[in-house]
Amino acid sequence: MARNIIVIGSGAAGMTAASTAKEKDPSANITVFTEDEDIAYSPCAIPWGIEGKSAWNDIVMHTPEFYEKERGIRVHTRTRVESVDDSAKTIVAGGETYPYDSLVIATGGRVFVPPIDGADLGNVFIVRTVRNGKDIQAALNGAEKVVIGGAGVIGLELAVSLKEMGKDVTVVEMMDQVIPRIADKDMADVIQADLEKLGIKFIMKAPIQSVNGEGKVSSVTAAGVEYPCDVMIFATGIRANLDIPKALGFDIGVLGALVVSPTLQPYKRGRMVPDIYVAGDLVQCESAIMPGATMSQLGSTAVKQGRVAGNNAAGAEKMLFGAVASPWVSVIANRQIAGTGLSRGLASWYGIDVVEGKSKGSTRARYYPGGTEMVVKVLADKTTHRIIGAQIIAGEEATGRIDWLTAAAVSGMTAEDFLFRSENAYCPPTSMVRDPVIAAVENLCINLKQ
Amino acid sequence: MARNIIVIGSGAAGMTAASTAKEKDPSANITVFTEDEDIAYSPCAIPWGIEGKSAWNDIVMHTPEFYEKERGIRVHTRTRVESVDDSAKTIVAGGETYPYDSLVIATGGRVFVPPIDGADLGNVFIVRTVRNGKDIQAALNGAEKVVIGGAGVIGLELAVSLKEMGKDVTVVEMMDQVIPRIADKDMADVIQADLEKLGIKFIMKAPIQSVNGEGKVSSVTAAGVEYPCDVMIFATGIRANLDIPKALGFDIGVLGALVVSPTLQPYKRGRMVPDIYVAGDLVQCESAIMPGATMSQLGSTAVKQGRVAGNNAAGAEKMLFGAVASPWVSVIANRQIAGTGLSRGLASWYGIDVVEGKSKGSTRARYYPGGTEMVVKVLADKTTHRIIGAQIIAGEEATGRIDWLTAAAVSGMTAEDFLFRSENAYCPPTSMVRDPVIAAVENLCINLKQ
Repeated sequence: MARNIIVIGSGAAGMTAASTAKEKDPSANITVFTEDEDIAYSPCAIPWGIEGKSAWNDIVMHTPEFYEKERGIRVHTRTRVESVDDSAKTIVAGGETYPYDSLVIATGGRVFVPPIDGADLGNVFIVRTVRNGKDIQAALNGAEKVVIGGAGVIGLELAVSLKEMGKDVTVVEMMDQVIPRIADKDMADVIQADLEKLGIKFIMKAPIQSVNGEGKVSSVTAAGVEYPCDVMIFATGIRANLDIPKALGFDIGVLGALVVSPTLQPYKRGRMVPDIYVAGDLVQCESAIMPGATMSQLGSTAVKQGRVAGNNAAGAEKMLFGAVASPWVSVIANRQIAGTGLSRGLASWYGIDVVEGKSKGSTRARYYPGGTEMVVKVLADKTTHRIIGAQIIAGEEATGRIDWLTAAAVSGMTAEDFLFRSENAYCPPTSMVRDPVIAAVENLCINLKQ
Repeated sequence: MARNIIVIGSGAAGMTAASTAKEKDPSANITVFTEDEDIAYSPCAIPWGIEGKSAWNDIVMHTPEFYEKERGIRVHTRTRVESVDDSAKTIVAGGETYPYDSLVIATGGRVFVPPIDGADLGNVFIVRTVRNGKDIQAALNGAEKVVIGGAGVIGLELAVSLKEMGKDVTVVEMMDQVIPRIADKDMADVIQADLEKLGIKFIMKAPIQSVNGEGKVSSVTAAGVEYPCDVMIFATGIRANLDIPKALGFDIGVLGALVVSPTLQPYKRGRMVPDIYVAGDLVQCESAIMPGATMSQLGSTAVKQGRVAGNNAAGAEKMLFGAVASPWVSVIANRQIAGTGLSRGLASWYGIDVVEGKSKGSTRARYYPGGTEMVVKVLADKTTHRIIGAQIIAGEEATGRIDWLTAAAVSGMTAEDFLFRSENAYCPPTSMVRDPVIAAVENLCINLKQ
């Protein structure tokens, strides 16, 4: 009999799991349930959708009809899964009961909105779904002043998009730097200065205390100061959506997300749960850099987990999901900023003493037109000399280099071994003859000796 | 007493060695001798110089005066080193004898011109030095038809430059593909088709038999056919320049280049030569992919060796030069092509059975404007499943990815381990959520099972 595979969630993790399961077991009945009205899109694209740089219809890669016709996958949109019974192996959705042989839980995360007064006022938004994006777009019509809560990557990308639309944009951030946690302050400050030059205002070290207004937002109070605004958007980070796992009594980890096996199966009081797989923002990961738990709420991680979960749910030859370094990249105004592994902030959570090496170069040979500045910083653990993280700011070509440094870090390479073994491809229109990555590691080796 | 360091050669290897030696031992007397009239430039830039995309003055990074004033390094241009006495530790140049404490030999390579009739005719050139570039530029004035001998990277870059200058360009190649040896035919054919669309003609499997003309070239004969031309340029690859090492009786390796230790010292009848270091195109390298000798005549390798040779010549804490995968990249018309490690052709030299995985994607998210096609091919050894090489064709962002695959290959990662451990940074303007590199390796893993 054909295998019934049910997937809960229609983001990168869920839809990848569904497609992979169908690819591995073409005879399976695959059904996706989602509360969302759109499926198969990247939340990372919302800022560009709001600005109109990418069309909403393009951002949403495929419709439920496409999945039904082209891939034989049924998708129920706007449908909440009310309950899961992991003994009977059934779920209830829209009042109906569906049996499953394998279940994939990919319910993702939710934007964390601080528990303050006024967060439910009109014209106060979160930024996560295409629906959020369209609602923000509509509210911006006629609005002048916008406050964005949170100076993470999405908050900053959004700030640039809104500024390009002619809005008066203020970003309010609790920490003393933009892109907190994953970028170091010296790198983050470069990006903040860029955005200040564009006219975006930053209020730092300012926790949001209340959203004020009658019916609709008229101001935001942060660190005791009131900032008038017509629209307020929370870009305050993602928390795992654990409604279903908690109802089932699955084990939650130290970081408030789901503990999983390398096969991406959850645990219940320390025992692996059979026939259930999880993928995406609700998963707690293991760090590939240092022993310990970490979160990796990235689209690329969701897709990688989706492939493993879908494969295993289909009963194909097992795939395993490993530890993560979580490389990331963002284009903010004219620069790319990318990072991998541990920042100084993350390293301090592990109690590690960090030594860094930095180098400033160009993305092309000095004499070749069109090059941009490239700043590379590589971090090592002072005790073992292992490369534990890196950050790059450049006008182009940061992505592949951060993947390169990721490969070195997860291989456990020391700075000295990297310098000994690493090579860089060179041609004047794409690189310097001695790549800033190599130069940064050479400086790192010098600093490690001191 | 101050250390006397003499460097022979003023290319990437020689000038890097000189600068590094001065950095490590600021009190040293450092003297560079070169037959060239220009110093400190990248031969890779010559095609763009000829076309005028980069100015000759920019391509030449620094003058001898700059080195003298800013770095305290004396440079003798247009000066041949007539002899080296490695017992007395002296060299003779311009009729004078100079003593050395350390000597760096960085005399590079020479363009291989086949021993055929007419190669010495007027308007027949090689492409190596800035002087060559300027001579070609002058000869092109009024010329219409140009034949380029050799469809390697430099030959193709030059072909595009000349075509953009309005010339009628024919490339004559001995092998059945462009970029032979380091690129596989399926990848190379994409580039050849691009160039044919631009109107560049290719004559394949056609060894050059003679250059014909009276005083000046008027035609080239290849595989029995005569091709009329006003200018003929040999871009037929580089052979190590071993004049000095041979005169000294240094050991030459199986690939016709100088055998060196990891400290970059040559050998004489199996014994390491003290106080002499070598760097650049005359060095025979060890492969980081498979045990065995390999050549790595790349600017990036020359600089890396220059740093090691200069450091060791200065008596600083030892640096070692390791084995190479030799990643390379070239921009040919609108595409970048990059490679690393072994191609199918190189792998056959090692007797290895190759399995490949290929993937076609984009350099950006599908919905983000400006993306270009990215084709990635990854090669593994059938026996061990280790990644032994890779090639990428893309409109942008190939360089960092090939460095990434290089790091994986030199770490000895298998395809399966790469799939398990590798992550890619993602943001819509710079990458797909599942990078074509990862997709190619997943296909490789599937093919390895068959």
